[in-house]
Amino acid sequence: MKRIEGVALRAGGARFELLDQTRLPEAEVWLDATDPEAMVGHIQRLSVRGAPLIGVAAALSVASLAERGADGPALHRALRRLREARPTAVNLAWAMDRLRAVLDRGGSAADLVREAEAIHDEDVAACERMGELGAALVRPGEQLLTHCNAGALATAGIGSALGVIHRAHARGLGIHVWVNETRPLLQGARLTAWELRRLGIPHTLVTEGMDGTLFRAGKVNRVVVGADRIARNGDVANKVGTYTVAVLARAHGVPFHAVAPWSTVDLACPSGESIPIEQRGAEEVRGARGVRWAAADASAFNPAFDVTPAALVTSLITERGVVEGEQLAAGGLARLA
Amino acid sequence: MKRIEGVALRAGGARFELLDQTRLPEAEVWLDATDPEAMVGHIQRLSVRGAPLIGVAAALSVASLAERGADGPALHRALRRLREARPTAVNLAWAMDRLRAVLDRGGSAADLVREAEAIHDEDVAACERMGELGAALVRPGEQLLTHCNAGALATAGIGSALGVIHRAHARGLGIHVWVNETRPLLQGARLTAWELRRLGIPHTLVTEGMDGTLFRAGKVNRVVVGADRIARNGDVANKVGTYTVAVLARAHGVPFHAVAPWSTVDLACPSGESIPIEQRGAEEVRGARGVRWAAADASAFNPAFDVTPAALVTSLITERGVVEGEQLAAGGLARLA
Repeated sequence: MKRIEGVALRAGGARFELLDQTRLPEAEVWLDATDPEAMVGHIQRLSVRGAPLIGVAAALSVASLAERGADGPALHRALRRLREARPTAVNLAWAMDRLRAVLDRGGSAADLVREAEAIHDEDVAACERMGELGAALVRPGEQLLTHCNAGALATAGIGSALGVIHRAHARGLGIHVWVNETRPLLQGARLTAWELRRLGIPHTLVTEGMDGTLFRAGKVNRVVVGADRIARNGDVANKVGTYTVAVLARAHGVPFHAVAPWSTVDLACPSGESIPIEQRGAEEVRGARGVRWAAADASAFNPAFDVTPAALVTSLITERGVVEGEQLAAGGLARLA
Repeated sequence: MKRIEGVALRAGGARFELLDQTRLPEAEVWLDATDPEAMVGHIQRLSVRGAPLIGVAAALSVASLAERGADGPALHRALRRLREARPTAVNLAWAMDRLRAVLDRGGSAADLVREAEAIHDEDVAACERMGELGAALVRPGEQLLTHCNAGALATAGIGSALGVIHRAHARGLGIHVWVNETRPLLQGARLTAWELRRLGIPHTLVTEGMDGTLFRAGKVNRVVVGADRIARNGDVANKVGTYTVAVLARAHGVPFHAVAPWSTVDLACPSGESIPIEQRGAEEVRGARGVRWAAADASAFNPAFDVTPAALVTSLITERGVVEGEQLAAGGLARLA
């Protein structure tokens, strides 16, 4: 495999490794990712997460298996297993379907590796383009709010929502970022804050319950979030809590942007109602990071994602262009296909 | 002092103790509360919390000091110190002012004890009355959502918002309660869930970010929360995160009730803008329960309370009666004075 030195994954020759995101920010531990079956576990335990990144990582893992001489049935089995590792993000299925198409047309191991590398490279380029398109919307001195992590730890490149923030900062716009901690798994407090610190971008951590106070005080000028799946009508599935932020943004007249590569768009999905929402275990809500503060058998609800209706979206930012909210109902997304 | 056997405090003779709420739900540890200076620490560390309860507990602590023969200057000093222990909840200042009035008119130690006991007894009775008034609004099978803890651990009686839930359940209405975990200090996950379990009331824990999903799915029929201070115009200061819930409730056409004893109403405060909001340390946001997951020096915002404008309040429930939202702007609250 070609040499890749990303924030979240690195490869070269027979090596392919993932940064274990469950260990951040305390430790930077790299996991072997050359075995697709192990990769299923990495994805389900969220060692690797972020819709675009899991698609890229899964593809590179299958490429690694092909490089080691696996036969067609073994590769098909790996593609099937990975495709079903998590249900909500569509990028994973999309990446596996691209590799399956290579196999179906009789492609070689080298063809599979090239396709996986292309999936990687396209995501890097998409992040750059989204970053530029989004940064063009940001005004000097703005305070942006983001939820969960849609950065270099969620993509192969500079990130989707954080790519916009990255590029806006690089333009010298003097921005400040409010980082939602993002319970239950704390991707904001652990991952987004870690990335913004590395980049030297001013930011402040808040709990989700504090967002209302920020909006009411006029301290949020713009919301940028990623997406795990975008339906044909523009409905956006993203980390649970995103919809609440969208309701607050609308109530306070603040623009709300979902930023995602085209691989996140699922034109076969008519609306958010058709997006499967992953339900996770109650123990994630009963505590965090190895500490439990609720009763051991406390009943808890734990949907990993929610759906923000297109009507609350100011614009969708993809590498193919920006689609304004009012164009979404009129099929504006499908016109970019 | 007379014999009191409450959920959160107990007294009798020379004994006055508080349940250490920072240790719940893991352990039920009782703290000596007879010394007002120690009580300041108990309040600031949130060993005792909940606007009505801190007023009652502080009053009983001063009564205890008086019983031990403290002189006027010592009692005045204790009242001043306690009055400033936390800024947002008005019940504390209100209770201290009642005791100071007893001292100012030359009252004896026995008079002070009787006044403190009256403050306690009135809160117990207020909870009963609020519970009945609020439960009368609840329909069979409703799902209620509450934020933070406004129960027997926040009052001297059955609670304000949880008093409504307690009485609605006792009426056999078949209710279910969504419990916001309430970051950063987790009063919902630790305290409200503990109370509801003791009472056998069906409930499910959620993180604040999940509320949007619940509202959008029609799974919340009514919101009941407590209050730390209610301004003359009906604006409600309560645990940070309450305003976000109120915005969600309004956006989804769900009734939102703040439930609080009259001691929480501050008619001298014209609106929420005049309510001081306590700012707490960043370390509470960087982690929880002894575990830190953000960087040790991560910048964090930590207002303990927020203000919900009266315009988002369906009704305020006090022991003096229920004031509908539309009456608040017309001075409906002051008419109960």
